[in-house]
This record gives sequence, structure tokens and C-alpha cells, in this order.
Amino acid sequence: MRSFVLKGHILHSRDKDRIDIFENHYLVCQEGICRGIFGQLPQQYSDLPLEDFGDKLVIPGMSDLHIHASQFSYRGLGMDMELLQWLEHHAFPEERKYEDLTYADRAYGQFVSHIRRSETTRACVFATIHREATELLMEKMEDSGLVSYIGKVNMNRNCPDFISEKDAIADTRLWLQETAGKWENTKPILTPRFIPSCTDDVLEGLGKLSREFDVPVQSHLSENLSEIRWVSELVPGTKNYGDAYAKFDLFGKDGQKCLMSHCVYSDDDELQTMKENGVVIAHCPESNMNVASGVAPIDRYLELGLQVGLSTDVAGGSHESMFRAMIHAIQSSKLRWRLLDQNVKFLSFDKAFYLATRGGGAFFGKVGAFDDGYEFDAVVLDDANLDHPQQITTHERLERVVYLGDERNIVGKYVRGRKLF
Amino acid sequence: MRSFVLKGHILHSRDKDRIDIFENHYLVCQEGICRGIFGQLPQQYSDLPLEDFGDKLVIPGMSDLHIHASQFSYRGLGMDMELLQWLEHHAFPEERKYEDLTYADRAYGQFVSHIRRSETTRACVFATIHREATELLMEKMEDSGLVSYIGKVNMNRNCPDFISEKDAIADTRLWLQETAGKWENTKPILTPRFIPSCTDDVLEGLGKLSREFDVPVQSHLSENLSEIRWVSELVPGTKNYGDAYAKFDLFGKDGQKCLMSHCVYSDDDELQTMKENGVVIAHCPESNMNVASGVAPIDRYLELGLQVGLSTDVAGGSHESMFRAMIHAIQSSKLRWRLLDQNVKFLSFDKAFYLATRGGGAFFGKVGAFDDGYEFDAVVLDDANLDHPQQITTHERLERVVYLGDERNIVGKYVRGRKLF
Repeated sequence: MRSFVLKGHILHSRDKDRIDIFENHYLVCQEGICRGIFGQLPQQYSDLPLEDFGDKLVIPGMSDLHIHASQFSYRGLGMDMELLQWLEHHAFPEERKYEDLTYADRAYGQFVSHIRRSETTRACVFATIHREATELLMEKMEDSGLVSYIGKVNMNRNCPDFISEKDAIADTRLWLQETAGKWENTKPILTPRFIPSCTDDVLEGLGKLSREFDVPVQSHLSENLSEIRWVSELVPGTKNYGDAYAKFDLFGKDGQKCLMSHCVYSDDDELQTMKENGVVIAHCPESNMNVASGVAPIDRYLELGLQVGLSTDVAGGSHESMFRAMIHAIQSSKLRWRLLDQNVKFLSFDKAFYLATRGGGAFFGKVGAFDDGYEFDAVVLDDANLDHPQQITTHERLERVVYLGDERNIVGKYVRGRKLF
Repeated sequence: MRSFVLKGHILHSRDKDRIDIFENHYLVCQEGICRGIFGQLPQQYSDLPLEDFGDKLVIPGMSDLHIHASQFSYRGLGMDMELLQWLEHHAFPEERKYEDLTYADRAYGQFVSHIRRSETTRACVFATIHREATELLMEKMEDSGLVSYIGKVNMNRNCPDFISEKDAIADTRLWLQETAGKWENTKPILTPRFIPSCTDDVLEGLGKLSREFDVPVQSHLSENLSEIRWVSELVPGTKNYGDAYAKFDLFGKDGQKCLMSHCVYSDDDELQTMKENGVVIAHCPESNMNVASGVAPIDRYLELGLQVGLSTDVAGGSHESMFRAMIHAIQSSKLRWRLLDQNVKFLSFDKAFYLATRGGGAFFGKVGAFDDGYEFDAVVLDDANLDHPQQITTHERLERVVYLGDERNIVGKYVRGRKLF
């Protein structure tokens, strides 16, 4: 059932600078793997079932590299607060509730139902410190058909007592034993909240668990300047924030998959290490606006050859839509260009699309494009309700559905060749 | 039919700093005029028909102080271009089409149908240079039940020949003769595109027409720095851009209603004159991001006592939603605060709501709130589809529907006491 042909207008990123467009083409999926885009369907695929999407757009599924499932309940609230006020008023009291599995079931159910019908096919997710609720979320994500890394959060200092872990490493080890390898599409990812929230022994323990279980790592990095100063006090003798993660073997290197969110203020040394270690950057433009952190110089990072993807960062971001994240990435890059530094170009639409698809997809492997050999994640878009009196091009149709569309425009979704709807 | 009572959760701005919330209250409309908010319905209104909206939210209608009806067709396109490229590629070729009334009928029909079902009850609108198409738009807006000022654009220099007026003043006079006083809800407003697009004699003629017909004026002001330098060359001997309008009697004063969009870079003298002359500022946050102009220091303008409203500025802005404009106002003010100037506070949610309702409504008179004596514009919001597992307050429900909602959440709309749906 995972072998078929789609017909329609196929769009994907050739590279970071350009979207390739194939009108009225065929897109082949064979056992969950993309076999490429064809103007004429090759003989060898002529027996596969074909679905003709006519004038609709078919794009790669999007990878949301940073989203807090446990914050989804208060998305769009407190969006005019500063970070600390927002953490105290919303984040911490809400996260506490996930010790109650009945609450977690309801809240995570809502999260999964929204993200399932969005343009996102893959996600890297923060849960809370609660092992059982995190496993419940993992079950739900597996049932959704999406592909995800899910993190049980680690946190045992600089937070209210009611969400501070008592035995972080033992509990995390148990969680890994229970979840690593259990599901086809859902995997654990080690998730220290950030350096200030974990004691040295926890960070060290997590580094070891990462190697022992061969699981990836995600966290926050260089989001704002006072946080960076704080980290340098907490982990003295390190060159920068990234170096503090590296000290505990949580910063890529030797095949460890590592994902770091924000990187608004990463210095040259930190960037160089990230490049050498293959650390992936999760750009969170809306969140960086909402909590007034700033704007990461993404075009510069791309020019340096760093690997960058995009994220909604709900609930620092208000909405699970990666289309909205693309808009925020472009808009905030323009204000950065205007107000701060004209040496870093603002992002084009094609670059934002790259970040949301091929750029972030790379964290999951061969994902985010329709190249031969890539895993087959696709989203079908119907933009017929976005009326216009004039002729517009297929590229313009894509731009318009990103700016004006919502989940109503998503009429088909495939993950690893499995049709979700 | 314009006298009735609504029941529900009533919210409006007390002042620029605070939203007042009245749960399960009564809102009285008598012959199109609001008679206030009551916990118990006064005896004198007990015979009026009552509509009970239960748990829904009732807010004042919003005033979009700046929107280009003729650019609605390409909303959400070219959003990563710079201003001049965008004007040449989209704005000018598209505006030319409105010499064809068949095209104008289709395009303006789409514009009116969208804005009618949005949260906007009042708008100040730019059309094109074409008199007949502008009158067609005015007919459609009148039929919609919304209240608007509609401007036939004036432009006779620094633009392609195909959209340059040949006899601007005579044509504008004819337009005023045909439209001033013709409709209940739709009025003409003089609309020089901006100083660079009008010769001195046209600007002078428009100033005189404004007095002769007692019609208001709208235009663009101090949107970006190169534009400001250009204006100082085009109208030598003036202190600033605003002074150039003033030279032609197009800058408020002596009872002339005047509305200026953008004001990103207005200097102290310009601001002082605007305050003295009662010029209203139309803040266009999304457009100012999209064309990389910058961010107007709105909190400072409010502190100075200037009159400020909010606008979508489609198609510099991508969407007709004033909710989105509120979000953009908050987000861009945060980046301005972070990247440029921490002396100007970023906007709170309550302030953004004020701008969208009471602030902009003031351009239309007693509009944008539920005070006794105000014209009755109201929007009813059903947020039941915005699921959440926890209890949230009525204020939080409003914030959430602004961040997450769309036209599906707008289930009732009243303008001057007339129910549109």
C-alpha cells in the first residue's frame, strides 16, 4: 500500500536558493521511498495505482524542529509578556499538570489532532519531566502516523520544586529502556531543558545515556544574552554556551545527532563547532519575536554551510503552522536587516521554504524533498478558496497559500508513503 | 430594526491601556447608537428584542485605517521583494487593469466579500486613479453595509505612463460631484498617493477641493528614509515631509480631517504639527515589515497624545484580518524594542486592541467602543473550535481568538446598529 503514483503540480526545493516546479508531473512512491518526479510516467511504474490531483499543489511534508507539546494548551496566550513572566505565569504551572495522566491524555490528544492535520509530517517535540505522560504522548504520536522524536524533559534546578526531577538519570534510563526501539515512527530524544535547569551530574549522565542508547539530543542554545552570561557562570571555564554542552558530551560529534534551538547569539567559535560536529540549528522566528529575544542571522548561517531547519516553537510561538513559521522567518529577517545589520541578507520565500522542508528534513535523514531515494513525505494543497481575479503562476500559488492558507487548504498528507488523509 | 439588546461577554477598551470585561452583560443599541453595557437590563429597554449570545464574546467592530482595494488581488504575493521591485512587478501593472470595469467588478467584488466577513466594520480605502472603477467600488461597499471612506487615487508623476492621470483635478472634481453625499455609509476621501507621485499643481488643487467639498484627506507619510529625502528635494524649503503636505493644505488644521499612513520616521516637528492639526496616524505594522521599512514607535506616539489607529495595508500587508494586524503590531514593536530602542516600550495586547478599535474608530467619530452615545458597531466571536484542556479567562479567550482565529470565528456583525449576519 506504500507504492503509488501521484499526479499534480509538484514543487520542492532544489537547494537553499530555489524551488523547482514541475507542472502536471508524476511523483512516484515505491515502498515508502520517493523515486522521483517525471514528466512521463516510466514504464516500470505503470502498474502502480495513480491518484490524479489535477490542478492541486504537491509539496514535501514539513519538519517542525522544535515544538513543546505540553505548551500547546496555552498557545496564543501571554504573547505580550517577557520570557520570565511568561514562564512563571504559564509554562511552569501548566507543565505541572502532566503528572495527572487524565489531563495529559486530554491535552496531548488536542496537540496531536492539530499537528496531524497541519502541513507538518515530522517533529522534534518537548514533553515535560513526567515519564508516564511522555510515553502517553509517544503512543499518541505513533498512532497519528507522523514521524517524531519526543523528549522527556530533564530539569532539576532553577525551577519551581513541583516540576524539579528528584532522580533524573535513573528515570530517564527507565524511559529509554521502555521506549527506544518500541515504535516505527516515534523515537526518544534526550532533552535537557537547557543548561541552567540541569545540574552538572545530570548533564554528565545524559551525555553518557546518549552514547549508551545511541539516542539524539535536543536543547536550547544562545537564545538571549542574559541566558548566555548565566551559563558562563554556571559552567565556568567554557568558551561559550555550546562549549558548556560539549563539556558534557551533549553537542554532536562522533555521530551523536544533536539539535539546538534558537542560536540567536551564537559566536563564531560556537558556530564553527556546530559545523564540525554536525549540530543542526532549529530556527524559531516567532518565538524569538514574542519573547523579544531577537532574530538569528539565518542567511549567514546558511552561507557558512551550517545545517538549519525551521520550527514553530509552540507556545513561545502561537501556532502549529509551519506556513506561519515561514512568514515569521521572512518578516523577522527583514526587520533584522533594516534595524540591525544589512550585511546579512533577509530571507527569500524560496529560502524559507527550504528551511521548512529540505533544511529541517535533513535531521531525519533523506527527508524533505522528492529526490530519488528520499523518504516519501508529501502534502497536497488545494488553494481554490483563495480567490483572485488575475492569472497567477504556480510559484505564486504556493506563496499565496503559505501567506493566506490554513489547515482547510491541506487536502492530502503522506508520511513514509502512508496516506494519513 | 436598529434597536435591540445583545447579551454575552462584552469586551471593549476603557482607554489605551486596558480592556474592560463584562461577563454575562447586556449591550443596548437604540436606533443605531450604543446606550451602554449593563449587568441588569434597565426597565426602559426591556421591550427591545434581545439576542442572547451565551458564552460568546462581543467586541467593538474594528477600523482598518489603510487598505488598498486594488491590491487585494495580489495579497500574499511578492512578500519577499523590496518596495520598488514590488511596485514595478505587482502594484503598477495590476492597478492598470482597473480601467476595465469588468475586471474591476470581479476584483472589487472579491475584496468586498472578504472584508465584509472579517472583523472590520469601517475602513479607509485606496482605489486607483480610475473614476468609474472607484465609483463601482463605492457602490459595492455601500451594498456591503460597512462604513468606509474610499479614495480615487491621484498620481501624475514618477509612475508609468499607463497609470498617470492626464487631468487629475477636473476628474477628481467630477468624482466628488458624483459621490459626495450620495450614500449613507460610503464617502469620498481625497487620496494623493504620496508627494512624489503628484505635481505641485495637483497637490494644490486637491487642497482646495478638500475645502470646497469639505472632504477628508488620506495619504502616505514618512514610510522610509530615502522617500523622505526625495520629498525634501521635490518640495524644497519645507521642514519635513508633513510640512510638504501642509504647504498644499493637505495636513489637517481648521477642521480638515486628515489621515496619514506609516509615520515610521516622523521627526519631532512633524509629530508636533500632527498633534496640533489633529492628523490621525494609520499604523501599518505588517507592511512596514514586508517592505522592510522599519517599525513606527507607536507607544511613544500614544504617550505624546497623538491619535493612532491600526491598518492591514493590503497588499503591503498580506491579509485583510485586523486580528493579524494586532499581532504584527505587537511582534514588530518587540523587535524594535530589542534591536533598536529600549526607550520605547513594546505594545501590550490591550494596547493593540485599543488601536484596532477605539484608536482607529475615532477617525469616524464616536466609534470603536460601547460607551453611551457611540455608534453601534459590534462583532460576535465564537471561539469554541479553539480547544484547550484547562480553564482560561475571558481576557485570555480574546487574546487566543486574535492569535489563532480567523473568519470562521466571526459569527455576528453589526454596523451602525444594522445586523450584517
